[in-house]
Amino acid sequence: NITLQETIFHNANGYIGIRGNLEEGCPEGFDTMRGMYINGFYDIAPMKQAEKLCHLVEDKETMVNVADTQTIQVSFHNRRFSMFDGIVSDYERVLDMEKGITERNLLWEMPEGQKVKFAIRRMASFENRALFTIDYTFQSLDFDGIVEINSLQKALVNNYCNPDDPRLAGESLIHLRPLGRLVDERQCCLEVETVTSCLKVVTAVANRIFVNGVEFLDTEKKYFKKEHKICESGKLKIHPGDEVRIVKYTVVQDSIRCTNCMEQAAKILDEVLKCGIEHFYKKQKEFLDKYWEKAELEIDGDDELNASVAFNMYQLLQSAGTDGFSSIAAKGLSGEGYEGHYFWDTEMYMLPYFVLTDPAIAKGLLNYRYKILPKARENAALLGHEKGVLYPWRTITGRECSGYYPSGTAQYHINGDIAYAVILYYNTTGDWKFMKGQGMEILLETARLWMDVGNFYNGKFHINCVTGPDEYTCMTNNNYYTNACAKFNLEQFLYLTELFRKEKKEWEAFQNRRNVTDAELADMKHAAAVMNLPYDEKLGINPQDDSFLQKPVWNLSRTKKEQFPLLLHYHPLHLYRYQVCKQADTVLSYFLFPEYQSKEVMKNSLLYYEEITTHDSSLSTCIFSIVASRLGMVDKAYEYFGDSAKLDLLNTHKNTKDGIHAANMGGCYMAVVHGFAGLRVRMDGVEISPTLPKQWEGYRFRFCYHGALIRICVDKEY
Amino acid sequence: NITLQETIFHNANGYIGIRGNLEEGCPEGFDTMRGMYINGFYDIAPMKQAEKLCHLVEDKETMVNVADTQTIQVSFHNRRFSMFDGIVSDYERVLDMEKGITERNLLWEMPEGQKVKFAIRRMASFENRALFTIDYTFQSLDFDGIVEINSLQKALVNNYCNPDDPRLAGESLIHLRPLGRLVDERQCCLEVETVTSCLKVVTAVANRIFVNGVEFLDTEKKYFKKEHKICESGKLKIHPGDEVRIVKYTVVQDSIRCTNCMEQAAKILDEVLKCGIEHFYKKQKEFLDKYWEKAELEIDGDDELNASVAFNMYQLLQSAGTDGFSSIAAKGLSGEGYEGHYFWDTEMYMLPYFVLTDPAIAKGLLNYRYKILPKARENAALLGHEKGVLYPWRTITGRECSGYYPSGTAQYHINGDIAYAVILYYNTTGDWKFMKGQGMEILLETARLWMDVGNFYNGKFHINCVTGPDEYTCMTNNNYYTNACAKFNLEQFLYLTELFRKEKKEWEAFQNRRNVTDAELADMKHAAAVMNLPYDEKLGINPQDDSFLQKPVWNLSRTKKEQFPLLLHYHPLHLYRYQVCKQADTVLSYFLFPEYQSKEVMKNSLLYYEEITTHDSSLSTCIFSIVASRLGMVDKAYEYFGDSAKLDLLNTHKNTKDGIHAANMGGCYMAVVHGFAGLRVRMDGVEISPTLPKQWEGYRFRFCYHGALIRICVDKEY
Repeated sequence: NITLQETIFHNANGYIGIRGNLEEGCPEGFDTMRGMYINGFYDIAPMKQAEKLCHLVEDKETMVNVADTQTIQVSFHNRRFSMFDGIVSDYERVLDMEKGITERNLLWEMPEGQKVKFAIRRMASFENRALFTIDYTFQSLDFDGIVEINSLQKALVNNYCNPDDPRLAGESLIHLRPLGRLVDERQCCLEVETVTSCLKVVTAVANRIFVNGVEFLDTEKKYFKKEHKICESGKLKIHPGDEVRIVKYTVVQDSIRCTNCMEQAAKILDEVLKCGIEHFYKKQKEFLDKYWEKAELEIDGDDELNASVAFNMYQLLQSAGTDGFSSIAAKGLSGEGYEGHYFWDTEMYMLPYFVLTDPAIAKGLLNYRYKILPKARENAALLGHEKGVLYPWRTITGRECSGYYPSGTAQYHINGDIAYAVILYYNTTGDWKFMKGQGMEILLETARLWMDVGNFYNGKFHINCVTGPDEYTCMTNNNYYTNACAKFNLEQFLYLTELFRKEKKEWEAFQNRRNVTDAELADMKHAAAVMNLPYDEKLGINPQDDSFLQKPVWNLSRTKKEQFPLLLHYHPLHLYRYQVCKQADTVLSYFLFPEYQSKEVMKNSLLYYEEITTHDSSLSTCIFSIVASRLGMVDKAYEYFGDSAKLDLLNTHKNTKDGIHAANMGGCYMAVVHGFAGLRVRMDGVEISPTLPKQWEGYRFRFCYHGALIRICVDKEY
Repeated sequence: NITLQETIFHNANGYIGIRGNLEEGCPEGFDTMRGMYINGFYDIAPMKQAEKLCHLVEDKETMVNVADTQTIQVSFHNRRFSMFDGIVSDYERVLDMEKGITERNLLWEMPEGQKVKFAIRRMASFENRALFTIDYTFQSLDFDGIVEINSLQKALVNNYCNPDDPRLAGESLIHLRPLGRLVDERQCCLEVETVTSCLKVVTAVANRIFVNGVEFLDTEKKYFKKEHKICESGKLKIHPGDEVRIVKYTVVQDSIRCTNCMEQAAKILDEVLKCGIEHFYKKQKEFLDKYWEKAELEIDGDDELNASVAFNMYQLLQSAGTDGFSSIAAKGLSGEGYEGHYFWDTEMYMLPYFVLTDPAIAKGLLNYRYKILPKARENAALLGHEKGVLYPWRTITGRECSGYYPSGTAQYHINGDIAYAVILYYNTTGDWKFMKGQGMEILLETARLWMDVGNFYNGKFHINCVTGPDEYTCMTNNNYYTNACAKFNLEQFLYLTELFRKEKKEWEAFQNRRNVTDAELADMKHAAAVMNLPYDEKLGINPQDDSFLQKPVWNLSRTKKEQFPLLLHYHPLHLYRYQVCKQADTVLSYFLFPEYQSKEVMKNSLLYYEEITTHDSSLSTCIFSIVASRLGMVDKAYEYFGDSAKLDLLNTHKNTKDGIHAANMGGCYMAVVHGFAGLRVRMDGVEISPTLPKQWEGYRFRFCYHGALIRICVDKEY
């Protein structure tokens, strides 16, 4: 499966991501998503509404495939190297997570019988995030003759499209138009601009060719105007035993982050070339050594699982944008699924991982949310709110890009999720400076929205007509999860204002700047205290929302295998009319806010919801695992964990080809650390209550807490 | 306002409709919707969903502007007649509802100073529904010279579009392509085909020109291939006092109703020409004499109101398709608003008028619903239902054409509305033959859907996640109106099965054919008996749905005038979160099912809902009027009636230019007959309890009941 491998072996560093495409390409007819992406770089695509209701979103930001600098074609006596021609043996693809590179090694026997060995290494540099390298080596075993090398740089590329899958772009649009170029002896720069958002991107490429270690300089560069493409070619004669190495450097610069991309890209590439590729290999290794020191998570007794866990942690690192212009897309930088949009996934599933392993990254993610506050304010106004902010359900720059609001914009809980992440970050790091500068403002404005969307009725605070995490039940009243988020958001904000008040001058400045009155705070306190958290006496559970239990239970045992995921086979209105859940909803709240219910109610609920949850979302089983762990059901927890841990490596959701499931990767980590180990960061300290699944010998992990690095080891014999 | 007049003075006969466009056209830049429509004739237009969820509707049927045979241009010494050039005086436009024609009379002084008198009469024939005529006369007062006449027939025309209004087509699509033509001395036939639905339509046109009564034959016909257009021209010399008359006949035939349209159109036109226009004027008058005999409704003391009421009754007649292929579009055949779609409006607002005045038309409308049962069954299946039918919310041929299902497809009450109309028709006419042939099957299949969509819970029958008539609150549980409809549908169906059983053989055949078991009927009986009809003890009202009262009340007094209608200024999610109603919802149920509540509860509710209803829909005030009348609040009823009665003539909703509000026209009639006069057709007879608004001297009307024509007169002195 080519596309699946493209995802698994993609290279990314939080800024750029390159799918693991074959340099030489695939024959026509093979499904391939050839792409290079920049985190936060987008064009605008139309998104017509079937009926044009007021303030529905009618265009969206979409991640752009920015260039193809991967292509390298090598021909031996006019026989072009291809995995689909001749005989390939000794083939392996490697992801080396310690060195931070991918490799492709193989022995190729051409149809004419001669053999050539290939070894290709690729890297997206963490030392210089603008840099992507291909280190392409081949050695003739018995070929004697002319080799032709063509290294291409294509600036006008298209996005992948699939009209049949709602999770991918439905139509192929032209997103790029050519701008300038700069070609000199050392390098080629091509500049393009997005058609609607008018953002510029430059790729600067340099090829260095060596024959048995001696640089080969006799190449020619040709520019093709129509395709805004450059081909650098060289012909050389080789003999058996000769080794040819092509080192191809790509530097990327974009106009979101820099003003003169062309100049800047050329300058960076110059510096990169001075250092040489070995320097960056060394730096890459050093960077990852540091990362793995903090991000340790090892399980004794299951090597495959260990590999999977490490893979997940590596992908999270590759995906995380930390420069304030970007966050973590649902698919990281590994593919075009969900169009590069940022969802609540970041705060609920991925940021908790970084809070514990690399708090600076977590801070970067929160800075992004702070930066888009003005757009979240505009979004709230479009939805009719007179105060507060409403974070967009899916976005790149902060504008709502959800086309179907009942399971998009209506998921107001994203506000609570972001507030939760701010509080989690503060409790874990103690970074009060961040709170005063950014955090408190996020907490205030999200809290304000709850006051605007909700209302007091019959002595309780109600939040009507919102959607919880479960997308199989939409636009409900008093979704338990949402209300719990709101309660926590209000409570914690109020608690932190008490701390803030101690710094009288700064508090007053904040109060004045943001117009915070004591009456407003009192109102919030009241709402939090009487927040409506649905509870059913008879079943002793928390219903997902006010009317959840009056609906008939979906008969999952009668549902045929091929009818899953349900969302692809049933009209939403039909789904909404049943007790059936796509994913953890109320159960997720038990992980976040265990203090709101007794263990008994949580256990009853977990057992109730597991009968009606399809886990059609990849955000689900990890949460069931955590909550089962915490409630002492370790076997159950282990089973759910298993479903979560190997999701992408085993492609269990059948769509990893479109990109990794970044949230599930974070969820998998949380299932061990917060689930089995029972780690809980509280306002007043850290709580740990480890359990050990019987399948494991032991496990250990490290985490950062208030500047300290703590190591936890759980063993059988103690 | 040109477009408004085009609507008011349109000519239609239930089959074809022609807007009251100026024969000579308007100068560029003037807004005009030039159109001729065939009831039930459509093309398919794409309707892309912003997010492609399962089974959402992705294309729609849309009424096609089929041809322009209206155009007649007359030039006097090359000075072409135009209302926008020279001086127009003695101008009047007349709708003669007794003769069934429209007139335009005027005196034109051309810029050069000469004067010509114009008198133009137009008719859509009821005698021959394929026929539309223009009788175009002008008389020179002091012009002496050459007159050139060009009479056009354009077969390739476009629909009107307005990207800013959700109630009109958003983009201009090509719907027609040229097919054949047939030109002979007497007439010209042009055939076109719709691009996607591949339906054919032929217009056959003949021009007869007379100078002072003597036929002028020296015309020339020219065909323009690219535009698939024919121009018939003649030049003649006239003197002061001369009168020129152009009689232009158009015959329309379409492939939905006939197999060889070209041949058929030519043949019909031949016959029409033999009879001559005076024959059709006579027949038109005879037809209308008969109509007004049954459709009498006169009010003493308010001439303007009388004119408005008559106008409404006339428009209803013009709009009603009765051939089983068609129904009554929301805008009749007067314009392109709502794309010629049929809604529940037909059964709830227009059919009740025809049941009383012309039961054959009512039967034709129900036959249409019977005919589309198979498509309603498919629609139910798409929505996940295992039995029953679900009528489409908006459609032409029976396919769902609603792009936004929360206030479209989710309005399941349309099933109950159609069932109600069937029962009303039966109770009024006693047409048992229709019931056995069609009616019972509709009642059975709609009843079945309630059983499939609803469920028993806590001893009551619940219907979850549907939308009532009020589109400002969507996807609610136990909408009072819907549940009342369902209860009535079930009860009446069960009652009629008892009658049916008496005809043992036929009943058993029906039972076998439709798989009706006693267990199924018992289940229905139980559901009807325990149907959940929300009631609030504290307020003594019926809440619109389960959660209506827990939402905050929208502050209508704080809402600015320019924010109405709310749907054009607020995001739907915001609207749904408040107690605010677009239109009568629970109140409508009180009109239909008064036996389900006490007068006190109905009165409380009416007073409650009138505070939060914006009447942003034209289906609303008439219902408030009826219910107020019935509850003895005559002054209130009169006020609401006033808002309803003159809606189109005074253009109070500002969009009559897009077409008449046919439902309101029926509603206006009902407000007098069912409201003030208190007429109620019951299973066991007719109930009348008239009141007289103090503004009136008296009123009278006739209605048909079981074959009899009954006249009711209400006077002050009795």
